Order: sequence, then structure tokens, then C-alpha cells
Amino acid sequence: MTGSEPSIDLEGWSCPVPLRHTDRIVMGHGGGGTLSGELIEHLFLPAFGAAAAGATPTDSAVLDLGNGTRLAFSTDTYVVQPLVFPGGDIGELAVNGTVNDISMSGARPIALSTGFVLEEGLETALLGRIATSMGRAAVAAGVGLVTGDTKVVEQGRGDGVYVNTAGFGLVPAGVDIRPARARPGDVVIVSGEIGLHGVAVLSVREGLEFGTEVRSDTAPLNDLVEAMLAVTTDLHVLRDPTRGGLAASLCEIAEVARVGVEFDERSVPVPDAVRAACGFLGLDPLHVANEGKLVAIVPPEVADAVLEAMRARSVGSRSAIIGRVTDTHPGTVVVRTSLGASRVVDRPLGEQLPRIC
Amino acid sequence: MTGSEPSIDLEGWSCPVPLRHTDRIVMGHGGGGTLSGELIEHLFLPAFGAAAAGATPTDSAVLDLGNGTRLAFSTDTYVVQPLVFPGGDIGELAVNGTVNDISMSGARPIALSTGFVLEEGLETALLGRIATSMGRAAVAAGVGLVTGDTKVVEQGRGDGVYVNTAGFGLVPAGVDIRPARARPGDVVIVSGEIGLHGVAVLSVREGLEFGTEVRSDTAPLNDLVEAMLAVTTDLHVLRDPTRGGLAASLCEIAEVARVGVEFDERSVPVPDAVRAACGFLGLDPLHVANEGKLVAIVPPEVADAVLEAMRARSVGSRSAIIGRVTDTHPGTVVVRTSLGASRVVDRPLGEQLPRIC
Repeated sequence: MTGSEPSIDLEGWSCPVPLRHTDRIVMGHGGGGTLSGELIEHLFLPAFGAAAAGATPTDSAVLDLGNGTRLAFSTDTYVVQPLVFPGGDIGELAVNGTVNDISMSGARPIALSTGFVLEEGLETALLGRIATSMGRAAVAAGVGLVTGDTKVVEQGRGDGVYVNTAGFGLVPAGVDIRPARARPGDVVIVSGEIGLHGVAVLSVREGLEFGTEVRSDTAPLNDLVEAMLAVTTDLHVLRDPTRGGLAASLCEIAEVARVGVEFDERSVPVPDAVRAACGFLGLDPLHVANEGKLVAIVPPEVADAVLEAMRARSVGSRSAIIGRVTDTHPGTVVVRTSLGASRVVDRPLGEQLPRIC
Repeated sequence: MTGSEPSIDLEGWSCPVPLRHTDRIVMGHGGGGTLSGELIEHLFLPAFGAAAAGATPTDSAVLDLGNGTRLAFSTDTYVVQPLVFPGGDIGELAVNGTVNDISMSGARPIALSTGFVLEEGLETALLGRIATSMGRAAVAAGVGLVTGDTKVVEQGRGDGVYVNTAGFGLVPAGVDIRPARARPGDVVIVSGEIGLHGVAVLSVREGLEFGTEVRSDTAPLNDLVEAMLAVTTDLHVLRDPTRGGLAASLCEIAEVARVGVEFDERSVPVPDAVRAACGFLGLDPLHVANEGKLVAIVPPEVADAVLEAMRARSVGSRSAIIGRVTDTHPGTVVVRTSLGASRVVDRPLGEQLPRIC
């Protein structure tokens, strides 16, 4: 469009504000909140039809291969900007993220695939750095990078590099971890400080500083899950609160299991720098993405032992019990604020922090 | 860059011709030819290090889960332009392509993941059409679309939609199909007419017409492979000649197995419209992508029976024996031309037809 063009180019026009009913895709459809959920429920699932029978909104699908082998299978595409951020880069994120999604069904991750969309003109050295991070993260998590694919698109049709990883793991016998298993009386545990990944990416993207440098918490969680399963195979729910943050994960669990969730705001570990950044930016730390944390819902009789096992691992050293599952207000998450009031926790509608992972 | 800027913008500059040694990614790195191979060998494999130990250049990785279960695992990202073309669309391609990659190790495909990168402003209706094609193709191939992910990027950072699919299947007992198993004396069979997909996409992209409309051959090949395995589990090699065409597939087999491959140009089924289009465009039909064909390398004693089983399936009705594996000129593919001469077949260096799949 040239500057002398008087008319609005409706062809290329898009809505800056996420709309619930839109005939065009908006950024919010990728935010992991309500709009993402609607896209799945109202577009993908009806379109996929019988092919998606039995698909559930979990981090990974669990498939029974018929010979006693249960496979957890998951995928994520990573489009984070910038490609390198404090504490990590898109490559490390792409490995840890899918390792964690597999781990959230209690599976031991085995192998990942890697699918690259490279933008013409990308520096080969930067791609090498990203791939090296992927190799290092895969070795650290004990998974293989066993198959892959690379496509190249013209300049202006990509953004440096997008990485898809898919992967699978084996679910141990007797393990059945999924959102629907949350039960009234269960205890809610979070594995450490929240909000670090989102604030780290945002700070470097916007050139903001919040006193101390905030670094992404990107980390593999499979060892932590293994330590928890060593206490009991009867963990009920595990989720990694990435896009949409802790709020989106808890809301989804409450909805799927038809239970209430209540937690105490003061129990949730929020680093000072994250709190300061969120205050400055008008964000709720509960909505900010994490990449090395999990939320666990466990039977009350094992909660203390699970917490102890989590704290014994460096990645879970700041674990804390934050709340309970209730039989009141099913489908709703309620937080008791530091002022003693209660408020309902919503998942974000659309995209607070675009392209965070 | 404004029009008044006198200097060349080296920052955004990229080489229009694929260079062997470049510090920037060029389109040819995504072409499935020599440059793609070099990127894998000289960048990805060294960078992945121990995480990629045992990775081989096959359509899918085969992993032994230790309890007698062997899994074939594969991924591809689809960036084809236009999104809809004669005979199919990106959604159908994304399902069939990964179903076929899994099938090329003799595995029965079970489930796929779907990873979308949507460009802000994409028409929801078009996404619905693509997703519907995916559902239909998955049902036709008998696979589930069991887990997925959607990201949205800003306008000008994508191209409507990119789709990644990854998937796995079970390798039947006794089946060991891989490029290294090609043996001198083996027979080379192609499952039908070549060049249709590439020419179909190119024709609509360039607005060209070649007399009759050329339609993509996109199709699932798992039933065809099952019919072949019913004749013998001792198939040696299967490949689907996508990017880089039949030439790239045969060259790769010759290199990996350290054998020669010889075939007769007149035996290769090439539709008249493909031949005409390739003549017009200066392309070699052997280099043009297919999306519903396979090349099989089988022991001579079963070749006729396998051919018969292939021809009994509609997707393989035009199957033909085209050549032989030899112990002369290992690593090299030689074609006998219609004029009686012989020439060495090279895989393409880079990108003849960008973004064909």
C-alpha cells in the first residue's frame, strides 16, 4: 500500500482487538486462553470429525497400543520472539516444552522430532546456536532427536526460525494422570516461582529493566515427575502452566473435572521482580507463561510426601502447597487475596503476551 | 529501506543463487536436494550431537521400545503455496505426507499430531476448509489426529498457514525396510506416474496451462504398502519421492547402500502433460515432487508378485518395474535414455520448485 492510496485496504485488514466471533484469525487465537479454546472446540474438532474422536484438552494424548504399551504423544510449535532471551533460546524451549508436555501424563519421554521453518536470509550461525541448544537440552532430558524436517520460506514469510517438536514417551503401568481426575479434597502444589519466562521474554523484547534481570525458567521436568511418581503412582493431575499461566491451567482442570479450585494468593511464589514487572505492565502474574514449572493435584494423604520429594530436586526446590480442590462452585477457580477477599480467577481471553513460546 | 537510500541494505540481502558455503540460509536449503543434505550433515547433526546418535536419512525413524514394539516416527512441516491447488490442499497434503513417511518403513500408521502456525488475518473459513481436508484424509488413511497446537504470528511473519504433522506407527514383526538394505540384483519398482504434484502446484502458482489440467497425486500409501507386505515381509527399501523427486530418492538409496542403480527412462511412467510442462519449464520430471507415489526395491524372486499386488490397488494401478540395483558404480544412479545413451542421474542441488510441499 503506498502513501498516496486513499482507500483502506480491506483485503489485508485485520482487527487489532480479539473478537469472539470473527471471520479472520487474530493474535488472540494463539494465546492459549479462551479464544484458543474456542478455535479448538468450534473449528478444529468439528472439522477433524471422527479423526479427532476421543481427543481431550491435555498436554499430551495417551494412546494404548494394545499390548500393554501406553504412549503419551504431544506437539508444540515455538514462535517466540526474540529467538534468544535471558535464560534460554527458542531451541532449548522447543525441547523442554515438549518434554514437559509428555511428562504431564506421567510418561517417561523417549524421542522428539524436529520440524524447522527457516526464513531465507537467516544467519547460519544463529541456526547453529539454536540447534546446539536443542542438542544440549535433549541430552539433559535424556531424549533423542531422532527425525526431522526443514523447510525454507522467502523473506517476509517467516521470522527467522519457527521450530516444531513432537515427541512421545511411555506411560508407566498404573499411572493415570489427567485433568478429569481432580477430586474434592485434593491438594494443589506448584513447583516453584511463577511468571519468570513471560517476564524474561517481555523484558528483552520491550527493552525494559526491572532492577534484577529476570531469566526464563525453561527446564525439563521429567526427572521431577519421576521423583514424584516414586512417592506414589496415584498423582491425579499434572499441568505445565505455559501460555495463559497458572490461571489457565487451573481453570481448565476445574472445568474438565467439574470441581472447584481454591487457593491463597500469598502461597503462590512470585519473585519480586516478576511482581514489579507485572505491576508496571498491568499484567496478572497468574496469567504469565512459565516454561519450567508444573502444577500438581494430589490426594491429601500423600501431599506432604510429594512436596518433600519435589523440594529435594533443584528444579522443584521452591515448591509450595497453594490450595485445595473443592466440591463447591464446580468449574470455577477462586483465589483468596492478601486482603482477605476472594475473587474468581478467569483464564485470559486472548493474547496478553504474544509469541511468548 | 526508502527509495532515497543510496546504499545497498546488506543486512536484509540474500543470495538469489544457492551457494554451497553460505553464512545465510537460502531457499535451496529447503529443497530436499544436496543443500538440504549438507544442512543436515554439517549443521544439524553436529549441533544435536549425542542427541541425534543413530539418526539415519530415512523418511521415518524406527525405535525399539524394548518390549518387542517397534515404532516408526516421522515429521514434516508443510509450507506449500498456494494453500489450495488442483487435486488437494495443504491440509490433505500434511496428513498424507506424514502417513506416507511412516509407511515407508513398513509401519502401520496410527496417530498424527497437528501443529499450526497461522498468520494473523487468515480467513477462518479457509482454515476450516483446510482442517476439514485433514479430518477427511485422516479418516481415509485410518489414523487419528490426537494432539495439536496452534500459534498465531503477525501479518508479514507467515503465509496464511503452515502445518506440521508428526506421527507414529507400528512396524510389524519381521519387517526391516530401509535404504541400506538395497542389494545388487534387486528390482526397482515405481508405483505410478511421476511429476504430477509438482506440476499441479506450479501450474496454478504461475497461471500456466498445459492442455489438460494436471492434478496433484496426493494420496495415502499405507494400504498399498500393506498389500505389498502381504506378498512378502522381505521388501528391502521403500521411499516416497517427494522433494527432489525420483532422482533424489534413488541417489540417496545408492549412496546409503553403496550400490549402483540403473533404470530405463522409457520404463518410467511420465504423463504427457507433465512431460510437456517440464519441457516448457526446463525441468527434469525425475526431479519433480510426487505426493502419492513410492519407489520400492525388492528381491528379484518376488518382484513380479509384488508388482501384481501393487497394480491390484487403484493407487498403484500404473506401477512399473523401471530398473535394477547393481554392484557396479556404487553410489551412482544411471539412466538409459530413449536414445540408447546412458547418463548419470544427480539429485538437484537446491530448489527447482520452492515450497512445493
